[in-house]
Amino acid sequence: MKILLIGAGGTLGTALRETLLGRGHDVLTAGRRSGELRHDISDPAQITALYAKADTVDAVVSAAGDVPWKPFAEMTPQDYQAAFDGKVLSQIELVRQGIAHVSERGSFTLISGVLAREPVATGSAASMANGAVEAFVRAAAIEIAPQRINAVSPTIFTEDLEKYGAYFPGFPPVDLSEVAQAYVRSIEGSQTGQVYALP
Amino acid sequence: MKILLIGAGGTLGTALRETLLGRGHDVLTAGRRSGELRHDISDPAQITALYAKADTVDAVVSAAGDVPWKPFAEMTPQDYQAAFDGKVLSQIELVRQGIAHVSERGSFTLISGVLAREPVATGSAASMANGAVEAFVRAAAIEIAPQRINAVSPTIFTEDLEKYGAYFPGFPPVDLSEVAQAYVRSIEGSQTGQVYALP
Ligand SMILES: NC(=O)c1ccc[n+]([C@@H]2O[C@H](COP(=O)([O-])OP(=O)(O)OC[C@H]3O[C@@H](n4cnc5c(N)ncnc54)[C@H](OP(=O)(O)O)[C@@H]3O)[C@@H](O)[C@H]2O)c1
Ligand SMILES: NC(=O)c1ccc[n+]([C@@H]2O[C@H](COP(=O)([O-])OP(=O)(O)OC[C@H]3O[C@@H](n4cnc5c(N)ncnc54)[C@H](OP(=O)(O)O)[C@@H]3O)[C@@H](O)[C@H]2O)c1
Repeated sequence: MKILLIGAGGTLGTALRETLLGRGHDVLTAGRRSGELRHDISDPAQITALYAKADTVDAVVSAAGDVPWKPFAEMTPQDYQAAFDGKVLSQIELVRQGIAHVSERGSFTLISGVLAREPVATGSAASMANGAVEAFVRAAAIEIAPQRINAVSPTIFTEDLEKYGAYFPGFPPVDLSEVAQAYVRSIEGSQTGQVYALP
Repeated sequence: MKILLIGAGGTLGTALRETLLGRGHDVLTAGRRSGELRHDISDPAQITALYAKADTVDAVVSAAGDVPWKPFAEMTPQDYQAAFDGKVLSQIELVRQGIAHVSERGSFTLISGVLAREPVATGSAASMANGAVEAFVRAAAIEIAPQRINAVSPTIFTEDLEKYGAYFPGFPPVDLSEVAQAYVRSIEGSQTGQVYALP
């Protein structure tokens, strides 16, 4: 399959790219400052430009998403707006504009995260964004069929424990290889409207 | 208790007002074009003005929230932004700015809806908004304690079956009196971080 991978240069994106190449797929990489196509998906106009270059693909895979992390008392309305732009509307627009560029039974796989279901301190904007993405995925699925859409909702990556582990005390981590398998399930399988909660 | 009720003139708000008055509470009503205090909560500055007039309260209760309903193919980025402004950021700001105006163990009770967990056609913006509100409530709860926050997430109101029933085929409806009891549980009880899914 021809797969458009957004966020290909990140921690998750790098693992996804390797897994997908290993399974014989053609992977077109995108990001703001890395990848073959350089576009900021938080700007709907840049998504239009991204798809114009990508042309038709069999799967759109998102491993991108920026949200502010701050104590609730320090959050501003602008922080929640940034989370919405950076992880919610950006991924909604990948789907909305992508409909015309994805093959008939092609798929969208979005990234969410454990904070949709379990909170941690300083993560209220991330929780808000992940909850929005997951409910959107269930809703879009019933309207875009036979095109498909799923979300992957991992806990902290084992590979990121050193960097972010302090925010997730006692959370069982998940290996990136396992996260990549959930993407494979979404891309190569036939499911839609699913949220793959990991572990 | 002194309770600030936003959306007091609506279908849900009217039922809530009656229930809360019946339980001996002091209810201060708010809305854009109805109620004692007239402010649009989709504008953060108007929430500041609302709280300046309301002063200190024991509970903030939201029964307000506007989102666009359209087939997915007709949605625009502006529609998702309107849903975010009308139901997500508006209620987040009620909490964020309300912290300084709610008593020590006082509560916030926000409105979500069944579309967070089960989709219907034309409801993708509503689903997105409800998912965002519910995850936010779980996250804010752990940071604002001992102040409390919960969400009420009802299916279609029995009283609205005639108006909106066609969008919810086979969904068991819930009576407004039962929805009001979930608000009572949040306001008078001690729970926090809960999402009351009804029925
Ligand atoms: N790290 C974890 O443990 C963990 C756990 C659960 C969920 N997640 C979620 O997984 C996703 C990826 O996490 P990660 O740790 O791999 O992040 P990361 O290492 O920072 O990588 C993010 C990638 O996305 C790209 N990107 C970010 N915003 C973009 C935008 N607006 N437009 C285009 N590309 C953009 C970045 O590239 P450029 O900088 O070049 O744009 C980068 O390649 C995030 O949504 C995160 O919340 C992470
Ligand atoms: N109807 C259902 O079956 C159902 C089921 C589940 C969930 N819900 C949710 O319950 C909530 C209330 O529904 P409803 O049917 O009672 O709606 P409604 O009859 O339209 O009432 C909404 C009330 O909120 C006020 N309001 C709306 N936006 C506002 C804003 N930006 N600032 C201040 N006040 C605002 C409106 O007053 P003004 O016009 O004067 O501002 C009105 O009093 C909504 O969030 C809805 O999604 C409804």
